[in-house]
Amino acid sequence: MQPFSQSGCERLAQVRIVLVQPAGPRNLGSIARVMKNMGLSQWVLVDPQCDPLDTEALTMAVHGADLLYQAQKVQTLPEALQGCVQVLGTTGRIEQYPPEWQIQSPRQAFSSLLAKLESGPAALVFGPEDRGLSNEELALCQYQVQIPTDAVYPSLNLAQAVGICCYELRTLSCERSDFIHPPTPLAPFELVEGFFQHLETLLLQIGYLHPHTARRKMLKFRALFQRAGLTVAEVALLRGILRQLGWVQKTLRPSHRIPPEEEPPKPGS
Amino acid sequence: MQPFSQSGCERLAQVRIVLVQPAGPRNLGSIARVMKNMGLSQWVLVDPQCDPLDTEALTMAVHGADLLYQAQKVQTLPEALQGCVQVLGTTGRIEQYPPEWQIQSPRQAFSSLLAKLESGPAALVFGPEDRGLSNEELALCQYQVQIPTDAVYPSLNLAQAVGICCYELRTLSCERSDFIHPPTPLAPFELVEGFFQHLETLLLQIGYLHPHTARRKMLKFRALFQRAGLTVAEVALLRGILRQLGWVQKTLRPSHRIPPEEEPPKPGS
Repeated sequence: MQPFSQSGCERLAQVRIVLVQPAGPRNLGSIARVMKNMGLSQWVLVDPQCDPLDTEALTMAVHGADLLYQAQKVQTLPEALQGCVQVLGTTGRIEQYPPEWQIQSPRQAFSSLLAKLESGPAALVFGPEDRGLSNEELALCQYQVQIPTDAVYPSLNLAQAVGICCYELRTLSCERSDFIHPPTPLAPFELVEGFFQHLETLLLQIGYLHPHTARRKMLKFRALFQRAGLTVAEVALLRGILRQLGWVQKTLRPSHRIPPEEEPPKPGS
Repeated sequence: MQPFSQSGCERLAQVRIVLVQPAGPRNLGSIARVMKNMGLSQWVLVDPQCDPLDTEALTMAVHGADLLYQAQKVQTLPEALQGCVQVLGTTGRIEQYPPEWQIQSPRQAFSSLLAKLESGPAALVFGPEDRGLSNEELALCQYQVQIPTDAVYPSLNLAQAVGICCYELRTLSCERSDFIHPPTPLAPFELVEGFFQHLETLLLQIGYLHPHTARRKMLKFRALFQRAGLTVAEVALLRGILRQLGWVQKTLRPSHRIPPEEEPPKPGS
């Protein structure tokens, strides 16, 4: 067997594994081991429910114990995603998802992730053992990933799910050395979130969104823009429009503002 | 997510997992679970060094415990391979192998395995946790398979190795019907063009675009939305915003409209 090219595999250092509220020390140990097996080293624990230095974690990690000492801990998912230009959330639930999400297999999702890895760090997010990521948490991610399983018993152990994803990342990463595009600076998480907040505020102001349906409708816009993968320049362009619109809106006399309940006339209809 | 086609995945019932002298009950439990997750059910334990019905095994298996009861036990590897027309042995060692062996990645090896699966059962053999398969045992196999790992720490946990192989088998086996979502109706050319025209008109009206730079700037928006691939529903949403904004703009008294040449104030700058 030929050794895989280092240049391709080195990209894996850019991939951050994020675990939301992990509760099993054995799982943390297994994950540390398999991450090291696959050449990944960056991981963040969001509000962990167990100690990564628990004896059981250290036992399971074997020669991957150094990763248990290096694990970064934060309180919220957005903190864990700071600086990431690509965010993929994993889900194992077979429930109803918002129809605008395009749930991908690891092979599909990681191929595009790796092609854009030169633009900056990427995060792969896993939910807690008992419930997985909520739709709210998944909505913070650009892509939603589901490992294909048998319908009879679809629920994977967390460490197995991470192991399978790390394997798929390594295999795809090391087998291809083709970089699809010269890197465009993709916008980091916090910049994209800032745009979504700004957009929501303005759409509420102009009466396009109503408070009770805003969340559901914003999911559709999030899905659209996250699918595109916004660049820093594009976020600046879009916020330029929003600023200009905000300025227009402020010049309106109160009597001309649209009350939130009123439907605007539909030109062309 | 659409269920994967049964016809492709059904082939997995022909694949037998063979474990030589497994010694860890937790590993057996994890393997039972991940095999069931991936739709495999046949396994044989060669001279097992622990009880597959040990409490730890049952705990780890969760809803895969039925496989622990079904595991077949034999004394020698040749017995476990009875009836198999294809035999693949896994190895994690980085030692010298006989030069005639062509060690393959799971993706390479399983592709040909699955292509020939109609001919009869196939076996995938894993060695004991502490030493892996010997060269003598590997010599009983037609093909030798190695999961790609990082040279710094190549030794995978047995359950992780089996999990990764089962995932790879399932993905290759089911990927011909790997349509995870029914296609969303994408917007035809003329609908997307109608949106771009509408957007340009409005951005000119609010003074965000200026006639002499409109074309160049619109190219940037076109690139963003075309990269996303707009659906019919998304075009309707976006045009809804534009209609609402057009209505807001019309309520402005002429004195409040922004002259096209004027730069608006930049809030926050």
